[in-house]
Amino acid sequence: MIMKLLRVGTAGAERPALLDGGGTLRDLSGVVPDIDGPLLADDAALGRVRAAADSGALPALDPAGLRIGPPVARIGKVVCIGLNYHDHARETGAEPPAEPVVFFKAADTVVGPHDTVLVPRRSTKTDWEVELAVVIGRTARYLDSAGEALAHVAGYAVAHDVSEREFQIERGGTWDKGKNCETFNPLGPWLVTADEVPDPQDLALRLWVNGELKQDGTTAEQIFPVGEVVRYVSQFMTLHPGDVINTGTPAGVALGQPEPKPYLRSGDVVELEIAGLGRQRQEFEDA
Amino acid sequence: MIMKLLRVGTAGAERPALLDGGGTLRDLSGVVPDIDGPLLADDAALGRVRAAADSGALPALDPAGLRIGPPVARIGKVVCIGLNYHDHARETGAEPPAEPVVFFKAADTVVGPHDTVLVPRRSTKTDWEVELAVVIGRTARYLDSAGEALAHVAGYAVAHDVSEREFQIERGGTWDKGKNCETFNPLGPWLVTADEVPDPQDLALRLWVNGELKQDGTTAEQIFPVGEVVRYVSQFMTLHPGDVINTGTPAGVALGQPEPKPYLRSGDVVELEIAGLGRQRQEFEDA
Repeated sequence: MIMKLLRVGTAGAERPALLDGGGTLRDLSGVVPDIDGPLLADDAALGRVRAAADSGALPALDPAGLRIGPPVARIGKVVCIGLNYHDHARETGAEPPAEPVVFFKAADTVVGPHDTVLVPRRSTKTDWEVELAVVIGRTARYLDSAGEALAHVAGYAVAHDVSEREFQIERGGTWDKGKNCETFNPLGPWLVTADEVPDPQDLALRLWVNGELKQDGTTAEQIFPVGEVVRYVSQFMTLHPGDVINTGTPAGVALGQPEPKPYLRSGDVVELEIAGLGRQRQEFEDA
Repeated sequence: MIMKLLRVGTAGAERPALLDGGGTLRDLSGVVPDIDGPLLADDAALGRVRAAADSGALPALDPAGLRIGPPVARIGKVVCIGLNYHDHARETGAEPPAEPVVFFKAADTVVGPHDTVLVPRRSTKTDWEVELAVVIGRTARYLDSAGEALAHVAGYAVAHDVSEREFQIERGGTWDKGKNCETFNPLGPWLVTADEVPDPQDLALRLWVNGELKQDGTTAEQIFPVGEVVRYVSQFMTLHPGDVINTGTPAGVALGQPEPKPYLRSGDVVELEIAGLGRQRQEFEDA
């Protein structure tokens, strides 16, 4: 059975849960205290979760009115890879990078998959980016190979790397300035464990704005695949269980469109999904 | 009495403490559970700490053999300001920036002020940077003025913004790649509360490598003073209690020296201090 791990409840007070093979939401709070780095690094605890899921005996939860939070608690850091899709590099007029472009989102930008996203004050260029998020399960430093790196991945989720292009590109300094506005990283709905994603380089990603399909890509277009990204990043910093890597976005962002570029405004609705990893929906409001 | 708050003990198991006006180390663990964002946002709890300090009744701790940890636990994010001193911008050949340059260090890079710092594998350009660290005490978003911003500062500390210049500048992407190697942010020894730093723009900063004075600056040279930095950053992201801002380094880093530049190697010893905020000493070792 595919394990879809999630966290439900009000922000800051989520409880661990899973979505079983029949689509029933089940309470995990009797099995583990939360879904976080220590759990993802603990094979015995993950085994208990799996056994409880297989038993069919976990209490069902009524999903009606229940908020879904980010699927991982106490994320340490969110490392992001820029320009990692051939089609996205082309649309932005950038050369494919010779090695991965790395920037950061602070963990406090992470919100649930259906939470409201805030358009920053004085923003005129708020943009969307559907991304495959990698959640780390083993401490990773100076890894030797992409294969070894994949063994350090706990699972995968959908991430929305919301970006303010003027802040990112036109305000001096690094990209971080346009990537860290509050609510700028919806994550989830689920964490799917790595053993249940047979090929992370064969996942379809799609994103719609107000119902119109804007991004329709595949991780097969990634310039640096997941294993290489994790190996590469581990040369520059230590990755800890519960850290997240957003692995880049395919073509179709507002920045890549002809003028006037259709940047997001209050009232817009963005939906995004990755095959097998679930779907997000956010309403945008002014900060 | 000036309150010098600190955390002592083995890494990950530090207890809160203070250094009293007579230089005696005193245990705070009977008064507050730790020194972290929630404490710094809690005037009542800080009042209890101050009353306990003034009472002279706190148990003394023997400092012999006691490690000093970072003075703040569970730091959310470390925001860094680049090129923020007139003299440092000149030595690197950069124009003074029109607005603050912002980059990130992950909170997991923070170590104690006397902990070993690791020269990353394959590093040839590990550099030093003494900096004034600002610790946030109130949630800060879209602040209107530098004065209002200063009221959101809990206190100040010494930070060492260790930097790998090849990773930072020559490897593509943003500066973050050379700023997030493990152990790259010694912090402390103390947190001095903001009310006890009469003028954050009149602090002398010094740094020595193997006993030789390399940096000898003053925060009077900051292009963007502390209040303006906090106000500016709050336009782009929300600052939370326990977040840290490293406010930039004065002239004298290895990058600014003639060739061959004296980058750090295993065995080097760096000492740094800010007047009133204490002194750090790190031995460098290969990762």
